[in-house]
Amino acid sequence: MNASVTFRNTMPLAGTTRAGHVTLFDTSAEFHGTGSAPSPMEMVLESLAACSMMDVISILRKKRRDPVALCVEVDGDRAEEHPKVFTAISMRFSLESPDCPLADFHRAVSLSMEKYCSVAAMLRHSGCRIEWKTELLREAHQ
Amino acid sequence: MNASVTFRNTMPLAGTTRAGHVTLFDTSAEFHGTGSAPSPMEMVLESLAACSMMDVISILRKKRRDPVALCVEVDGDRAEEHPKVFTAISMRFSLESPDCPLADFHRAVSLSMEKYCSVAAMLRHSGCRIEWKTELLREAHQ
Repeated sequence: MNASVTFRNTMPLAGTTRAGHVTLFDTSAEFHGTGSAPSPMEMVLESLAACSMMDVISILRKKRRDPVALCVEVDGDRAEEHPKVFTAISMRFSLESPDCPLADFHRAVSLSMEKYCSVAAMLRHSGCRIEWKTELLREAHQ
Repeated sequence: MNASVTFRNTMPLAGTTRAGHVTLFDTSAEFHGTGSAPSPMEMVLESLAACSMMDVISILRKKRRDPVALCVEVDGDRAEEHPKVFTAISMRFSLESPDCPLADFHRAVSLSMEKYCSVAAMLRHSGCRIEWKTELLREAHQ
C-alpha cells in the first residue's frame, strides 16, 4: 500500500493515493499553515472512525441488518510533550436502523474494536486508551 | 481534538473536522466500498507523511532554508492476519531547494522522525518499523 504527499511553496499539502484520489492536509497559522484542510492528527482520528465504521457496516449487513445511517463522533486527548501522541480517545457510535437491536449493534462495534479495526489496534498498541459507546438514534422495529 | 464521520446508506463515508473541513473515505468493492476515495489505512499513511513534512518545512524555515518543493513517498506493509496493522513503512523524502544542503535536510527529517512527528511516534510505538531516506531533487546552491 503506498501514497505520496507533496508540498509546493505553500500549504495545503496534497496527498495522492495509487488510485489517484487527492486529499488535502493543512494546519493552523500557529504552525505555519493556512487552516484550509484537516491536520494530520485530525485525519488519524477520522481514519480510526472510518476504519471501524466500515467493519460495523459490513458485520451488520452480514447479519441482514440495515444500517441506514451511522455516525461516529471521536474525541482525542494528546500528550503535552512532543511528540504529542494520542493518550486517550473516546468514540460514540450512533446507528439509525429499522431492524437492528442495540445488542447486535454493540456486538458489531465490539468485534471491530477488539478484532478487525487496523487503526484501533495500532493506536491501542501505541499506548492510547480507547473507550467507546453505542446508541440507537431511533427505536429498532423488530 | 475531535471530528465525526458519517455514513448514509452508501459509501463513501464523510469525515468532518470541528472547522468544517470534509474528507471522504471509501474502500474497494471487495470490502463493500465503491473505490471513490482513499481507504482509512491509506489515509494513515498520508497522515504520517503530511505530519512529518510539516515538521520538516518548519525546521528548514527556522534555519532560513527555502523548501521550494517537498515530496514524501510512503509505502506500508501490513500483517496478513486481522487486524492487519502496518508492520513496516518506508518513506522517501525528496526536497527541491535553492539553498538547503542535504545534511541540513537529513537533520530536519531526523528531528521530525525521532522527536516531533506524532504519527510516526504512534506507529513506531505500535510495533511498526519505519525506515526513511532523503534526497535532493536539485543540487543545492550554497
